[in-house]
Amino acid sequence: MAAQPRLVVGVDFGTLSGRAVVVRVEDGAELGAATHDYEHAVLERTLPDGTALGPDWALQVPADYVSVLRHAVPAAVAAAGVDPADVVAIATDFTACTMVPTDADGTPLNELPGLDGEPHAYTKLWKHHAAQPQADRINELAAKRGEAWLSRYGGLISSEWEFAKALQVLEESPEVYDRMAHWVEAADWIVWQLCGTYVRNACSAGYKGILQDGTYPTREFLTELNPDFADFVGDKIDRPIGALGTEAGRLTAEAAGWTGLPENIVVAVGNVDAHVTAPAAQATAPGQLLAIMGTSTCHIMNGEVLREVPGMCGVVDGGVTPGLWGYEAGQSGVGDIFNWFVTTQVPASYVAEAEARGLSVHELLTEKAAAQPVGAHGLVALDWHSGNRSVLVDHELTGLVLGQTLATTPEDVYRALVEATAFGARTIVEAFNDAGVPVEEFVVAGGLMKNPMLMQVYADVLDLPLSTVRSAQGPALGSAIHAAVAAGEYADIHAASQAMGRVDRAVVTPIPENVRAYDALYAEYTQLHDHFGRGGNDVMRRLKAIRRRALEGSRS
Amino acid sequence: MAAQPRLVVGVDFGTLSGRAVVVRVEDGAELGAATHDYEHAVLERTLPDGTALGPDWALQVPADYVSVLRHAVPAAVAAAGVDPADVVAIATDFTACTMVPTDADGTPLNELPGLDGEPHAYTKLWKHHAAQPQADRINELAAKRGEAWLSRYGGLISSEWEFAKALQVLEESPEVYDRMAHWVEAADWIVWQLCGTYVRNACSAGYKGILQDGTYPTREFLTELNPDFADFVGDKIDRPIGALGTEAGRLTAEAAGWTGLPENIVVAVGNVDAHVTAPAAQATAPGQLLAIMGTSTCHIMNGEVLREVPGMCGVVDGGVTPGLWGYEAGQSGVGDIFNWFVTTQVPASYVAEAEARGLSVHELLTEKAAAQPVGAHGLVALDWHSGNRSVLVDHELTGLVLGQTLATTPEDVYRALVEATAFGARTIVEAFNDAGVPVEEFVVAGGLMKNPMLMQVYADVLDLPLSTVRSAQGPALGSAIHAAVAAGEYADIHAASQAMGRVDRAVVTPIPENVRAYDALYAEYTQLHDHFGRGGNDVMRRLKAIRRRALEGSRS
Repeated sequence: MAAQPRLVVGVDFGTLSGRAVVVRVEDGAELGAATHDYEHAVLERTLPDGTALGPDWALQVPADYVSVLRHAVPAAVAAAGVDPADVVAIATDFTACTMVPTDADGTPLNELPGLDGEPHAYTKLWKHHAAQPQADRINELAAKRGEAWLSRYGGLISSEWEFAKALQVLEESPEVYDRMAHWVEAADWIVWQLCGTYVRNACSAGYKGILQDGTYPTREFLTELNPDFADFVGDKIDRPIGALGTEAGRLTAEAAGWTGLPENIVVAVGNVDAHVTAPAAQATAPGQLLAIMGTSTCHIMNGEVLREVPGMCGVVDGGVTPGLWGYEAGQSGVGDIFNWFVTTQVPASYVAEAEARGLSVHELLTEKAAAQPVGAHGLVALDWHSGNRSVLVDHELTGLVLGQTLATTPEDVYRALVEATAFGARTIVEAFNDAGVPVEEFVVAGGLMKNPMLMQVYADVLDLPLSTVRSAQGPALGSAIHAAVAAGEYADIHAASQAMGRVDRAVVTPIPENVRAYDALYAEYTQLHDHFGRGGNDVMRRLKAIRRRALEGSRS
Repeated sequence: MAAQPRLVVGVDFGTLSGRAVVVRVEDGAELGAATHDYEHAVLERTLPDGTALGPDWALQVPADYVSVLRHAVPAAVAAAGVDPADVVAIATDFTACTMVPTDADGTPLNELPGLDGEPHAYTKLWKHHAAQPQADRINELAAKRGEAWLSRYGGLISSEWEFAKALQVLEESPEVYDRMAHWVEAADWIVWQLCGTYVRNACSAGYKGILQDGTYPTREFLTELNPDFADFVGDKIDRPIGALGTEAGRLTAEAAGWTGLPENIVVAVGNVDAHVTAPAAQATAPGQLLAIMGTSTCHIMNGEVLREVPGMCGVVDGGVTPGLWGYEAGQSGVGDIFNWFVTTQVPASYVAEAEARGLSVHELLTEKAAAQPVGAHGLVALDWHSGNRSVLVDHELTGLVLGQTLATTPEDVYRALVEATAFGARTIVEAFNDAGVPVEEFVVAGGLMKNPMLMQVYADVLDLPLSTVRSAQGPALGSAIHAAVAAGEYADIHAASQAMGRVDRAVVTPIPENVRAYDALYAEYTQLHDHFGRGGNDVMRRLKAIRRRALEGSRS
């Protein structure tokens, strides 16, 4: 036994690509990894055939996910230089809430004849924000009826989640809705492709599917929302639930062919990219808040007690690890905002300077911005370019930059945007603290932890030391840990996390004078946050409505 | 007489360059023109010797103005192909309030030995905004004491004007203040260089020097402001006043040598660039609002009656043409904002596209933005990057862009900034209308009238047809008209304007559906304008204070 290491494979499906990692069960060593980009990336303006999409749409093509299995998994095994026969299990994690409409056997509707030009037949990516009107009605009705589940979601159901997105399909394309046998979380769809069995994972079902205490929203509720939506749960989403870290099935011959892994190895129940990262960062104990910071940020924290935290995304029994209450919050735009800025607002002279010095534009801006004293740019921004997930749960909100003068530089704005996301994180941490679920440690995972200026800003704004997951691919490692547990290699997720996860504690610590300076700027952020986010001036909602009408008018 | 045309020369001193034009007295034909750039442009970060300047400083070097006389005037005469002996008069106009500190014979202090490293020895350009604390105290005290002149300036004295800027010199550099024999409007300093006589023009003295009904603010007022400021009027600024369109003196031998013009020709009293443009645009009748739109915008309108218009820059008897009340309002940043945007926020791909197509970046953005339906970008901006001159008179205010999403493009923001300046113009027009000085025509001069998208936006936002001055150099032509009047060629400015000025009426007209769409966006602008500009949230002032402290802290 000792000569042949036992291996597991974790595959993380992100917004633009999928990443596979081969991990040793014994100690979590990452032996090889590979990434595969989605051919179609995110469809935001048109379908592949040119069909125009409305504002706030974001679609994907499920075949791109299978390509990751076909390319990234074999490449990771090859990079590891191991014998694939030693792999005992595979587990996956996915962005959420990303929804695939399928027929009865799991074929995505966009692959059916005649439906490739129909936007609603495609996968709705997590950041598809065009179902806000439906979300508004769900929230209004749930509040009116006093639905007990509402408080488990901070008082608001997101337009990103299963019900709002499905209701949009029903109301905008009833034919597609009728042809849709299943409305499947991509996290579960990929497991279905691997093992041939459709098992709904406890995490997605709880956080995105409004499954609480074993039940979904009632038929009465759905009927009042829309009579044609009455049977949505039974018809489209109700399936057996799989606990996290358990077996969903065994690898089929077809999937073994795609991946090059042995047929019949264990396939774990699906999971969400953020939640699966907690064990990779050894952040499964109560009070350890894990922030997975990439294009967006997810905040995950276990708690021993159930508390109602206003504006959080959700609290789910066993949503992160069985036996604890898993809390989730989030920021819907973080790295996305910085990337948008670099793509659309950085002048040619900066790009040339970065090239000449062998830096990325992000690195150049980071270097220039890092030299500034706190507050020297005179700016404050709101980080709502992609809406606000927590604590306002409103995707009609938009970005704001305030304080520009003719002396304002690109690095000024870049730093202000970074700070805005840090203020957004502090707003979430304070909501947890105020609700009696204290945050004791801030553990960072995700690509943004590579940015030293950003890390210092977060430590200073939060007045907390930052720990970092040591793995460069936290979610994929987390999936590998789940695979090991599902294969029976460890007793539970916590035990596997201690053996296979890795964290560096307090790698960045707050600078006291910056903490004080940021307190003043955070007060300004909060005042703007509450003014524009809590009804003081609903201009952002009105501008979005004006924009929609203007674009419709020009299209017709 | 008929064989030899009588000629006049007008010279317009702008923010970055001076422009001379040779004009035929008989019909205003522009026979030749030439421009000369200021070698030192605007000093905003350092003096020529590297001495650092604080935030909001903007200085110039007076020798650059003389270079315009030496280069642009002879070049214009050469371009016209005329005999300089036929030139009968010269007149000049200047940015305002731009102040030159001089010794007794008019030598700028920065040219004195040992003062070239002293920021306060340099010319303070109109957009030097570092005297806001002094302006605040002037306004507070004037309101407390109920000074009668305050209402003539819309209730607020600007930090851009003579008193605030001088008080800043006194309080930050008493040595420079002591060595300063005269605190001279650049408009009068250049005339002093031409004819050897220091005559204060009625326009600057009234609008910028708080000269009303023949008197300046009292010694008592100045003493209460600062005891050392008590004799400011008598010591530093009080001089004989010259009416507009009259003779200040005759061209000296030295100035004849610079310009190549005949010695002893008439030199007209100085003037301000905006005000002098009114006759060039045939906009000297009551109700004709002239907007000179360049880096900033000045609004000039004659009225038959004296009314108090809240937040205007000033109303001066004979301030534009003798015999009428001249009203002035302004927007301190317009073209400056667009240029800042193009320099700091337009990505390399746009610059490359513009180059490939032989367009300027402004033209490319204009073309892309012009294709949008009103409101399609989902944005609203505040045009306060350089503060707000009218109607808030507050240079601590800063810019704002609201409504960004990850789909926001550079042309979206560019258009929103153009619209913000149009909303700013509408705010001013409505203030005039509400005060009983109705605006009946909107006449545009200045470089921005070349931008067709901008012109349509202004027509739609204002719901007014736009007329345009036909001359490409309105201020210089206006100066030439004043020269003709000063030389006795016409009875008065109005008569000269009818003969020599030129305007194209209603070249752009409002599109009704756009007018309606902009009414909704203007309502959003106004709500933000009042919230951030009238005390709802003083975040902009606080951020500026934080910025100053942060920069001071890092310098010490």
